[in-house]
Amino acid sequence: MDNFTFYAPTFFDFGKGAEEHLADHIRKYGGNKVLFHYGSASLKKSGLYDRIRDHLTKNGIDFVELGGVKPNPRASLVYEGIELCRKENVDFVLAVGGGSVIDSAKAIAAGTCYEGDFWDFHMGNATIQKALPVGTVLTIAAAGSEGSPNTVITNEDCLVKKGARSDLLRPKFSILNPEFTMTLPPYQTAAGSTDIMIHVIERYFSNTEEVEITDRLCEGVLKTILYELPRVMEDPKNYDARANIMWAGMLAHNNVCGVGREQDWASHHIEHELSAQYDVTHGAGLAVIVPAWMRYVYRKNPHKFLLFATRVMGVSAEGTEEEISLKGIEAFEAFLKSVGMPLTFDEIGAREEDVPEMCDRIFARKDTEGFYVKLNRNDVEKIYHYAATGTFE
Amino acid sequence: MDNFTFYAPTFFDFGKGAEEHLADHIRKYGGNKVLFHYGSASLKKSGLYDRIRDHLTKNGIDFVELGGVKPNPRASLVYEGIELCRKENVDFVLAVGGGSVIDSAKAIAAGTCYEGDFWDFHMGNATIQKALPVGTVLTIAAAGSEGSPNTVITNEDCLVKKGARSDLLRPKFSILNPEFTMTLPPYQTAAGSTDIMIHVIERYFSNTEEVEITDRLCEGVLKTILYELPRVMEDPKNYDARANIMWAGMLAHNNVCGVGREQDWASHHIEHELSAQYDVTHGAGLAVIVPAWMRYVYRKNPHKFLLFATRVMGVSAEGTEEEISLKGIEAFEAFLKSVGMPLTFDEIGAREEDVPEMCDRIFARKDTEGFYVKLNRNDVEKIYHYAATGTFE
Repeated sequence: MDNFTFYAPTFFDFGKGAEEHLADHIRKYGGNKVLFHYGSASLKKSGLYDRIRDHLTKNGIDFVELGGVKPNPRASLVYEGIELCRKENVDFVLAVGGGSVIDSAKAIAAGTCYEGDFWDFHMGNATIQKALPVGTVLTIAAAGSEGSPNTVITNEDCLVKKGARSDLLRPKFSILNPEFTMTLPPYQTAAGSTDIMIHVIERYFSNTEEVEITDRLCEGVLKTILYELPRVMEDPKNYDARANIMWAGMLAHNNVCGVGREQDWASHHIEHELSAQYDVTHGAGLAVIVPAWMRYVYRKNPHKFLLFATRVMGVSAEGTEEEISLKGIEAFEAFLKSVGMPLTFDEIGAREEDVPEMCDRIFARKDTEGFYVKLNRNDVEKIYHYAATGTFE
Repeated sequence: MDNFTFYAPTFFDFGKGAEEHLADHIRKYGGNKVLFHYGSASLKKSGLYDRIRDHLTKNGIDFVELGGVKPNPRASLVYEGIELCRKENVDFVLAVGGGSVIDSAKAIAAGTCYEGDFWDFHMGNATIQKALPVGTVLTIAAAGSEGSPNTVITNEDCLVKKGARSDLLRPKFSILNPEFTMTLPPYQTAAGSTDIMIHVIERYFSNTEEVEITDRLCEGVLKTILYELPRVMEDPKNYDARANIMWAGMLAHNNVCGVGREQDWASHHIEHELSAQYDVTHGAGLAVIVPAWMRYVYRKNPHKFLLFATRVMGVSAEGTEEEISLKGIEAFEAFLKSVGMPLTFDEIGAREEDVPEMCDRIFARKDTEGFYVKLNRNDVEKIYHYAATGTFE
């Protein structure tokens, strides 16, 4: 096990009716002027937009609004939010929505306190030293941004999707009411749970030895999704299944499953190019990339694939290491397919002719991608090729 | 799943050499005058006492000392600590030791800020409103106090051992270097891991349905101890096994495994009487009580015993529910025995003639104990009787 630090100070208020405590939480963390940040149509359709507005007004919380966050949240809206926060002397950012809204809120919170261009944080040219406090009301179980120090923003000028990270970005509080996720369409629900699983998988496939406790936590989160997601696909109003997935989503990315071990993250970076280029839902893009990544790397570094197959996917331990590993990957692909996730370029409208350009961006500043198996440009091209054609040939 | 809140803001600095950051952490949380609180002989023997003193002195941290914490920490020393903190204007309490030292430090931290008698908190007559910040350097993997909001103190005047709880008692930081646990004798090591397992078991055996995610986390922590403890018994210097146990110990009791579900805690309360009466090591007392509790309740409420047997103890799912459950309990007893834990009154010097008095104290203020199966006085007498004689007759 490697040395590590772990700090996850977000206050979670979980369950039915938790949103009624929103004003109390904001007051506790000192918001005199709040930016109410959200997406668009779905929040208004569900009635949550009106409820939040009424709640803030009734409780005397002064706020300004900024809606319009899109999936794969855009830098342009972050700039707009920063300008608004400065103009209105905002001192607290409230995100109501999924990971995109929360990520956008975090970028605004950091950017408002920084004299330069917030994109510096994402390009690794500056470190976040200060940020406005952020609180969240979560409506999608997926990104884990409600408990994480991360934000991922897409700069539409250069088609670059990149993350930034600081413990200062961890939300002060997050309100998680599983009922809010019940109206999410099946495809978005499945894509969210896929994102949750891959957050764990990026941590699970590690070369760090002797990490039994985090291995077991990873397996627990994965098995929870394998059990609960089909139940939600069957019955979208199943509160308990939604609740288990929602809490699993937080645990998958607050790093309790990842401390003390090398992590991979190649698949996320390979997928980010798909999201940036085709505006595909992140979880769906991951469903296309991760099985291809698995098929490419399992022969080069099999040891974790054996555990994944037997402990997570329930494959029997009979056969060679390679056979068992492959059965695990196949079982994972079958699961993704069963919940309606795409597995190929065709299904998400991606084109193999764009691969060179995507690889240019991935390898603009580095020679290898990932850690479980270090991938060079040729390797990543092959993974994209598999996703496009179903073969490495 | 039940509604819940979860807040675990302790900063963990984990691994080799983490203690070198001690002064930085104290400065960050604003200690101008520190109480250095510890046990006794073992800290001096290991050299850690001198290292901490030198480190504080070298870094210009002003401190006063209070040693002498014993296992099952005593109220008398807490009173002494409170007096010292007031006299010396202490504004930060540093606990260096195991759960007993940390619990004593927490009680001092809360008592110093309270005009009345700190024991009020433990008797449920007052709520903790303020406490000095606490930091810890952990030397025993067991109690989980390094990340928990709990403190348990024994009042030797009345032989009462009772807990108090407040998020204000969660340590600001905890330094966890697994090397510090390597010199712990085998019996204390096994008792510590038993305590860790029982912290999970008190949460696992629950009547709350639909808690897949926390069930899976509980199982992960339990399986980690089942795997790692025998390795440590075999090789006490196995850093990685010690590390996995140490982090599992924190996770077992910071409530990440327990949110959203009814919890039991009968076994802890039944055991506290043994610790208070005979000064037995808490984990060893639990090894005596929990299997007796399991054998008493599994017929009345079998559903979680089936999971425990098959998912945790690796019992095959063949046979009746009762047969499988019993095999799980037997496997757990065999594990405890294999690591040198006692299973009977005799082995810890307890006497059945004291049972009425212990029951008097347990039921002084309530009619039932525990939740998985609600136990009345007669039930608890039977559990003690089984621990004393090996039969419920």
